Amino acid sequence: MAEDSAQLSSQLAEATLNDSVSELKAEFSDRVPIKRIISRPDGGSALAEQKVRVGGWVKTGRKADKDKFAFLELNDGSCPGNLQVIVEAEKGDLGRLVLTGTCVVVDGVLKLPPAGVKQKVELRVEEVVHLGPVGGNPIYPLHKGKMPLEHLRDFVHLRSRTNTISAVARIRHNLAYATHTFFHNHDFLYVHTPIITTSDCEGAGEMFQVTTLISEGERLEKELIQNPPPSEADLEAANLIITEKGNAVSQLKSAKASKGDVNAAVAELKRAKDNALKLQERAKLQPGIPKKDGKIDYTQDFFARQAFLTVSGQLQVESYACALSSVYTFGPTFRAENSHTSRHLAEFWMVEPELAFAELKDDMDCAEAYVKFLCQWLLDNCYDDMEFISRQFDKTCIERLKMVASTPFVRITYTEAVELLIDAVKNGKKFENHVDWGIDLASEHERFLTEVKFQKPVIVYNYPKGIKAFYMRLNDDNKTVAAMDVLVPKVGELIGGSQREERYGVIHKRITEMGLPIEPYDWYLDLRRYGTVKHSGFGLGFERMVLFATGIDNIRDVIPFPRYPGKADL
Amino acid sequence: MAEDSAQLSSQLAEATLNDSVSELKAEFSDRVPIKRIISRPDGGSALAEQKVRVGGWVKTGRKADKDKFAFLELNDGSCPGNLQVIVEAEKGDLGRLVLTGTCVVVDGVLKLPPAGVKQKVELRVEEVVHLGPVGGNPIYPLHKGKMPLEHLRDFVHLRSRTNTISAVARIRHNLAYATHTFFHNHDFLYVHTPIITTSDCEGAGEMFQVTTLISEGERLEKELIQNPPPSEADLEAANLIITEKGNAVSQLKSAKASKGDVNAAVAELKRAKDNALKLQERAKLQPGIPKKDGKIDYTQDFFARQAFLTVSGQLQVESYACALSSVYTFGPTFRAENSHTSRHLAEFWMVEPELAFAELKDDMDCAEAYVKFLCQWLLDNCYDDMEFISRQFDKTCIERLKMVASTPFVRITYTEAVELLIDAVKNGKKFENHVDWGIDLASEHERFLTEVKFQKPVIVYNYPKGIKAFYMRLNDDNKTVAAMDVLVPKVGELIGGSQREERYGVIHKRITEMGLPIEPYDWYLDLRRYGTVKHSGFGLGFERMVLFATGIDNIRDVIPFPRYPGKADL
Repeated sequence: MAEDSAQLSSQLAEATLNDSVSELKAEFSDRVPIKRIISRPDGGSALAEQKVRVGGWVKTGRKADKDKFAFLELNDGSCPGNLQVIVEAEKGDLGRLVLTGTCVVVDGVLKLPPAGVKQKVELRVEEVVHLGPVGGNPIYPLHKGKMPLEHLRDFVHLRSRTNTISAVARIRHNLAYATHTFFHNHDFLYVHTPIITTSDCEGAGEMFQVTTLISEGERLEKELIQNPPPSEADLEAANLIITEKGNAVSQLKSAKASKGDVNAAVAELKRAKDNALKLQERAKLQPGIPKKDGKIDYTQDFFARQAFLTVSGQLQVESYACALSSVYTFGPTFRAENSHTSRHLAEFWMVEPELAFAELKDDMDCAEAYVKFLCQWLLDNCYDDMEFISRQFDKTCIERLKMVASTPFVRITYTEAVELLIDAVKNGKKFENHVDWGIDLASEHERFLTEVKFQKPVIVYNYPKGIKAFYMRLNDDNKTVAAMDVLVPKVGELIGGSQREERYGVIHKRITEMGLPIEPYDWYLDLRRYGTVKHSGFGLGFERMVLFATGIDNIRDVIPFPRYPGKADL
Repeated sequence: MAEDSAQLSSQLAEATLNDSVSELKAEFSDRVPIKRIISRPDGGSALAEQKVRVGGWVKTGRKADKDKFAFLELNDGSCPGNLQVIVEAEKGDLGRLVLTGTCVVVDGVLKLPPAGVKQKVELRVEEVVHLGPVGGNPIYPLHKGKMPLEHLRDFVHLRSRTNTISAVARIRHNLAYATHTFFHNHDFLYVHTPIITTSDCEGAGEMFQVTTLISEGERLEKELIQNPPPSEADLEAANLIITEKGNAVSQLKSAKASKGDVNAAVAELKRAKDNALKLQERAKLQPGIPKKDGKIDYTQDFFARQAFLTVSGQLQVESYACALSSVYTFGPTFRAENSHTSRHLAEFWMVEPELAFAELKDDMDCAEAYVKFLCQWLLDNCYDDMEFISRQFDKTCIERLKMVASTPFVRITYTEAVELLIDAVKNGKKFENHVDWGIDLASEHERFLTEVKFQKPVIVYNYPKGIKAFYMRLNDDNKTVAAMDVLVPKVGELIGGSQREERYGVIHKRITEMGLPIEPYDWYLDLRRYGTVKHSGFGLGFERMVLFATGIDNIRDVIPFPRYPGKADL
């Protein structure tokens, strides 16, 4: 790399402004991304004397030497580092240039800075090509000091200009790309499961409804005000016309009038009847949401039935696994829970692989390999951002990534986990939630296992059937199901998965036992009715993974536009 | 590659069943994907005599030699091709094995087939490990013959088992992965823009509303039936108790009772008041959707305001571009249009890159490079699927990909395009829609330009401002805006984009001129108020790209779970 840079540098040494840095230039812009200057192994020093155009936003700026020139720390989001830019007073309006948030595009020459300073290269400006100021009223809400993340949530359209949120954005991008790369490399197909769903009937109370009934009702209400429905008198008048037209036809017929005359009268009668029918229909119109037999008439809704936002793509993606073997979905999911914790969002992203011809062990192998891959990817591709996060938020985050990437995960059964927790209680450990076989492990239990007991990721598997979903495969003990959760330090449960019940008779019985209706799952039963196959899968909460990687405390800060009760800005 | 295969083959030659084909085995399963056998350059012949386990679904099967054995064409979705599997009668229930749709897992030995047959290798079964039958009632709805795509839409949970829908799934996956790879390679960051939005106020009538008001209203209605609100008498009784408790306090005070007694009486009075207040609140509860001043009270909705499903992530992703320079979003978007065409869906996926420091030419360069990359990717990675599609649906699809991947796109201004269309009309070409400067180009015009006139992709740019959105950059002529559409043969408009208006004064004026309110766009104006930057972007309808690549006619067949008026299965 260092040699490449040196070679590149010597190749470029005598080039001109227009074509010198074509290798460095952004592909669809005339600027050079700052990353390509300062994130080289040599820190950019081999590029000294090159002419470049850069653009970005001023992080901090200060005037120096009696305002003869200014230093600007310029950032363009391509990397956490800034390029130091030096502008002389005659080149631009220093007073505006130095303000935090100003956008500038400059042409200049890269120079080796004086010995002893941190940066390996700086830019001497020859021309200020563009200046997007921040002056004026209201005042720019961001300033160069550190701002609390909570405060920044009121400025979701601007907070990506801060060091922290931009580092999170780069880490998040890399986790997403690493996800697609991992599954693509293992021959999984990405399947877009539906966002609007009519299928999930578990806990419908916690789902968002998707509808056009309200807006249609309001449209109708307005329309009826502008153009009121027919009155009783209008209807009577219309009926009177029918009678008149009917009489006219009878008279013509009894008078043996010409066929043409009769037909014309009949046509008039028909028009009168059509008109009356229309008026009657219109008189029936009710503003607001359409009802039938006292209930909302969903046949009038857009999809002719009640529709919701998905809470998981699992059931749908299973149908693809039962045809294409290895598939995954990666999309938004939704919960209308009135939850105000630092771990819950109303809109969040999930990664859900599904593997045919795979049992629980394969599922655990896949989950472990995937999480390790993500951690190693960040170490390989985001080290500078991780260093920033480590300095600002969580000193242990890099060590944690290294540990997870390199250490085999512990695997214990639920029964073993409960025994370990009971032992801990005997040895004086206090939990808020009582431990006993059959309980759902609480967050404090999960964190004890992964943070205290093992100090590494732990996969707990074979859970009591009573606390798990109907689709998980019943084990031969008839007490547990082939479910597994991956627990990691810092966030607790990162992944939940299971081998799916592929036996038609068993799953049919489980649905009934749990008091669920069969009909909505009939399509799902078809996957067992026709060519059934052993299959397994899991779900990873994508924001949980970003929290795990960064050590940031609140999930609202690791998604660009967080949605939670009372908040859906933009 | 062929040498590699031969080498691999000789390495494997003497291995045992358990470890022989570890290089071929799926990573998280004990099977070997069929692709890794038959999609090798040698068609799998070098693997002859290897023992493998494969799993899949029977495409067609037939018994032979007086039912002594059966031939199965087995497919596991990893590639369009099938592996020919030969099972002897003593190894399994041939009658069930040969049925289309049966799932089987078999251990066997790969064998060179007799000379003269098409396939290069076939599998002799040693053991049938799993059989998932299709017998029973109701009958399996798919059969081995070709079924109309329209008919298959009633079986979205099974149709991925057909050759066409599975080929589309592989092509779609590849287009998605190629999209992420293209942008990642060019240092764009993937940004998850929100699905639930409160920001887009254009054409709210065509947006789906997201709400919990209806379900909350129904919940309350049930609750009030089970536990009726207090009657007038209940309220009066509660007020009577307050009076009594108040009198008691007065009496104790005037009797100079002990402090303890007085305090106790005051506490009772307070409880009585609290109770009455609760009853009054409960008496006010109305079943159904909460209203205030005759209008729906959205402060009671989940987000404390009216919320919708996004129609585009552009405005939000611009805020990230104005901080991180090169970004893109790739997510679901929604239109509640009552549209029944073969080109429209209520839920579809869009790719929307946004580039800071980029003008319209850069935007066109990016769009062209991206589309070319996608086409070349399919040629490099999905040739077998494209050959299948070419045979079944569109003989020209491979040539079209090659042409687009290698030919520079034509670029003409809107004004030039209109002149060409007028010339065509003069030369006898008939259009349904009249051509004149200022019209929005109709599909027939677009297809004439790209399919007849140039027979290659055409980018039309600089459209009249009157037919384009407020955020597009006004050109110096004051008549046109810096918009561009990429038109391609077969589907017409594939991409729409523009340079965005970055000048605060100009965009403010444009919003007002177009009769739009300023307030909802205030955050968007902030991007111009503070550190404004030239930026450009575009949107590609992902399903349109799949249609373009495959030549399939109906958009409902290129998305796994199509949503359109009256239809949202699963």
